[in-house]
Amino acid sequence: MSLLIALAVASTFSHSQPIAEGKYDKVVDAIRIKGMTELHAFEMLRDLTTTVGSRLSGSEGDAKAIIWGTKTMEKLGFQNIKNMPCMVPHWVRGKQEEAILFGHGDITTKLNCTALGGSVQTPPGGIFAEVIEASSLEEAAKLGEKVKGKILFLSGAMPPENIRTGASYGVAVQQRVRGAVAGSKLGAVAVVIRAVSTMNDDEPHTGTMRYEEGTTKIPAAALGVQSAVKLGSALRSGIKVQLRLVLSCETLPDVPSANVIGEIVGSEKPEEVIVIGGHLDSWDKGTGAHDDGAGVVHALEALRLIKELGLKPKRTIRAVLFANEESMGRGAAAYAAYAKDAKEKHIAAIESDAGGFAPRNISCSFDAKKLKRLSKWEPALRVFEVDRLTPGGGGGADVGPLGPLGAVLFGLEPESQRYFDYHHSHNDTLDKVNPRELQLGANAMALLCWMISEEGISSK
Amino acid sequence: MSLLIALAVASTFSHSQPIAEGKYDKVVDAIRIKGMTELHAFEMLRDLTTTVGSRLSGSEGDAKAIIWGTKTMEKLGFQNIKNMPCMVPHWVRGKQEEAILFGHGDITTKLNCTALGGSVQTPPGGIFAEVIEASSLEEAAKLGEKVKGKILFLSGAMPPENIRTGASYGVAVQQRVRGAVAGSKLGAVAVVIRAVSTMNDDEPHTGTMRYEEGTTKIPAAALGVQSAVKLGSALRSGIKVQLRLVLSCETLPDVPSANVIGEIVGSEKPEEVIVIGGHLDSWDKGTGAHDDGAGVVHALEALRLIKELGLKPKRTIRAVLFANEESMGRGAAAYAAYAKDAKEKHIAAIESDAGGFAPRNISCSFDAKKLKRLSKWEPALRVFEVDRLTPGGGGGADVGPLGPLGAVLFGLEPESQRYFDYHHSHNDTLDKVNPRELQLGANAMALLCWMISEEGISSK
Repeated sequence: MSLLIALAVASTFSHSQPIAEGKYDKVVDAIRIKGMTELHAFEMLRDLTTTVGSRLSGSEGDAKAIIWGTKTMEKLGFQNIKNMPCMVPHWVRGKQEEAILFGHGDITTKLNCTALGGSVQTPPGGIFAEVIEASSLEEAAKLGEKVKGKILFLSGAMPPENIRTGASYGVAVQQRVRGAVAGSKLGAVAVVIRAVSTMNDDEPHTGTMRYEEGTTKIPAAALGVQSAVKLGSALRSGIKVQLRLVLSCETLPDVPSANVIGEIVGSEKPEEVIVIGGHLDSWDKGTGAHDDGAGVVHALEALRLIKELGLKPKRTIRAVLFANEESMGRGAAAYAAYAKDAKEKHIAAIESDAGGFAPRNISCSFDAKKLKRLSKWEPALRVFEVDRLTPGGGGGADVGPLGPLGAVLFGLEPESQRYFDYHHSHNDTLDKVNPRELQLGANAMALLCWMISEEGISSK
Repeated sequence: MSLLIALAVASTFSHSQPIAEGKYDKVVDAIRIKGMTELHAFEMLRDLTTTVGSRLSGSEGDAKAIIWGTKTMEKLGFQNIKNMPCMVPHWVRGKQEEAILFGHGDITTKLNCTALGGSVQTPPGGIFAEVIEASSLEEAAKLGEKVKGKILFLSGAMPPENIRTGASYGVAVQQRVRGAVAGSKLGAVAVVIRAVSTMNDDEPHTGTMRYEEGTTKIPAAALGVQSAVKLGSALRSGIKVQLRLVLSCETLPDVPSANVIGEIVGSEKPEEVIVIGGHLDSWDKGTGAHDDGAGVVHALEALRLIKELGLKPKRTIRAVLFANEESMGRGAAAYAAYAKDAKEKHIAAIESDAGGFAPRNISCSFDAKKLKRLSKWEPALRVFEVDRLTPGGGGGADVGPLGPLGAVLFGLEPESQRYFDYHHSHNDTLDKVNPRELQLGANAMALLCWMISEEGISSK
């Protein structure tokens, strides 16, 4: 783009510049100017990812993050700040993660691998066995007896043809979550999966997996995409392929963690609560910048903007930084139990757990018909690049349990193309976050909170 | 995002997955599946940026790019492939680019700088002079006599509060384009500007500038944002600040270049032409991956998809890779002159010159009222994340001149937050392009071409 377009820029770019109109225009403008000038969401994310780093449930980082969240809320002047305790799993990765491919003769190839979260370890010397490949859990089931005594390699990729990557994640992640149980039932001695990733690199992506009562627990690991391709090629070359897999991870007894909570008390109906949140825990790879550092600072920044702009919400707006979303959702369960016991009236709950990219949509638990009630809010949200409210969403794993308690659920849906390039890997770091894209999400969430706090909302 | 959300993914992500409906659903699906599976736009961009590299008008890279474009069209089997010659400016950067800040006593600081495209050089030993700062051209004019004999430092940033960055570019770029003339008229001996950038780094961004007949040509350079901030701080500390600026750039006589053209001839109305294009030239920093390698491969890939899917367009679809957009627009002028002379009926022209990010909108030269005619196309475009067609756009610098000849103009508007982080700098390289985001733009342009070729369009 050159001078020529620069001179024409008034007629191209500014025409499509979204402009606030109507009831909320002053608030939109105030949020826009303060938000985009200060880009404070990114500064908080820099602080979280550098002074705390990764925040695996039960780890030292998890404990530090709780202190960080609490102190940050104190600095920002939130009200009723508290830690809501819950016990969380304490899985540790250990020092050894090794996968070596034995092909023709003495040729060995080191594959990039990482244990899946919750996996048991291998014996100290590792597991050495022949490999058998299946491209999905269904294909694995068809192999039947052939799997016995072998390492099951689940090689299915995220289907590329879906436009939004979350749908493809929903498909491929089944191998990660259910692979060990499926393999074990067929007699496999371990399971390795192709990393659930949209990136053509060799970074293994971790993530939670499950065992089942009464089924032998076998070790489970992810291979980098390029390592998975190598393994697949070796298998299809017709030679006998064996793998040595060494994992030293283990699950220790549960330890205490906590949700971190702070709020702005409503001026007219303080008993009506709007929750806005993300999860404070992360995987131990990278620093959880997008997953879900972005959601954490979205929630903090939304409240900060409202507070520092001197806006006085009629209803209570509460930021909740949830514990342990990544494995068992213990923070979400603790919060929902509290909300039920305390008989607090949760009218809405907004979650950000899909990265710090520029907003696309905000999903809502309303069906299409009910959602029309909120269409008046769309022009204001569009200023922050939220194109529309979409029906039938579940909010997210953390706020979802508030739905049955009467809350209308919302979930921020940012641009999805890059999320699974970084997700649960070493690459989920601050440098992958654009400060302006991150801020747009915080602005949109601040505005949505504000509109709900002004007008109220009912799930009925 | 964890297991919990993965299990809920059917109710969150897939609900908002855009789905093709209606007349064009089969074509949309075919483009979607082939496009997202092959990601061929990125492969072509890899080839362009690695085998050719940067493509400054008149340079060896420019000549290589013309051969690359022609051979690529031949490989893809386009029809009526040709080079349309035009003469282009031949500015060369030279080896020396140096800006040294002299502050208190003997303390010197090296600043990161780069010559603006078209700048004259300094004397061999450089220019050594006191610095005077203005935050805009208007502020500079107010300084009047004080500028005489000094280096004028134009320190205005891109205003951060605009949501779409193109509007802010339109403001800040005035310093780059008109700074030398404004400074010269006030008696300045050189001009340095704060890089037109959204990134807080120290990468100087180049770009074209202008001189004016009858005004002394003074050297012009951009400073990296952090260098500009250092210079500003030194000035505001109250000390006398001097700068040594050395530039060895120069403008040589014009040399031949060319637009590269290829098409799919229409099956029913071949005389009606739809142009789709980007510009083949780039600045010499980086490899012009986003600006405008993305536009080049968008055009090539759009035609490739249509051709390889066996679609037979009723009207002619022509890819034009324009020469010399970055400084004088000679390729655009040559094409418009040809179109006029040949009396070809250009019904529409679509440009991509705003980067290879995920699409947001497509602007159209129609006003809001006329644009309603095309609203039936929006649901299909939305599958590729084009939220809407927006009125009043100028297409872009290359297709703009086809407007007066009767073409309806369209411009792809991708997500804008990151574009000016990289634009015209060393950072505009392949690794800043996401293959899926890039492909979505190509898919959308292929679809728009197809719909126009099926139904026709009239600017009346």
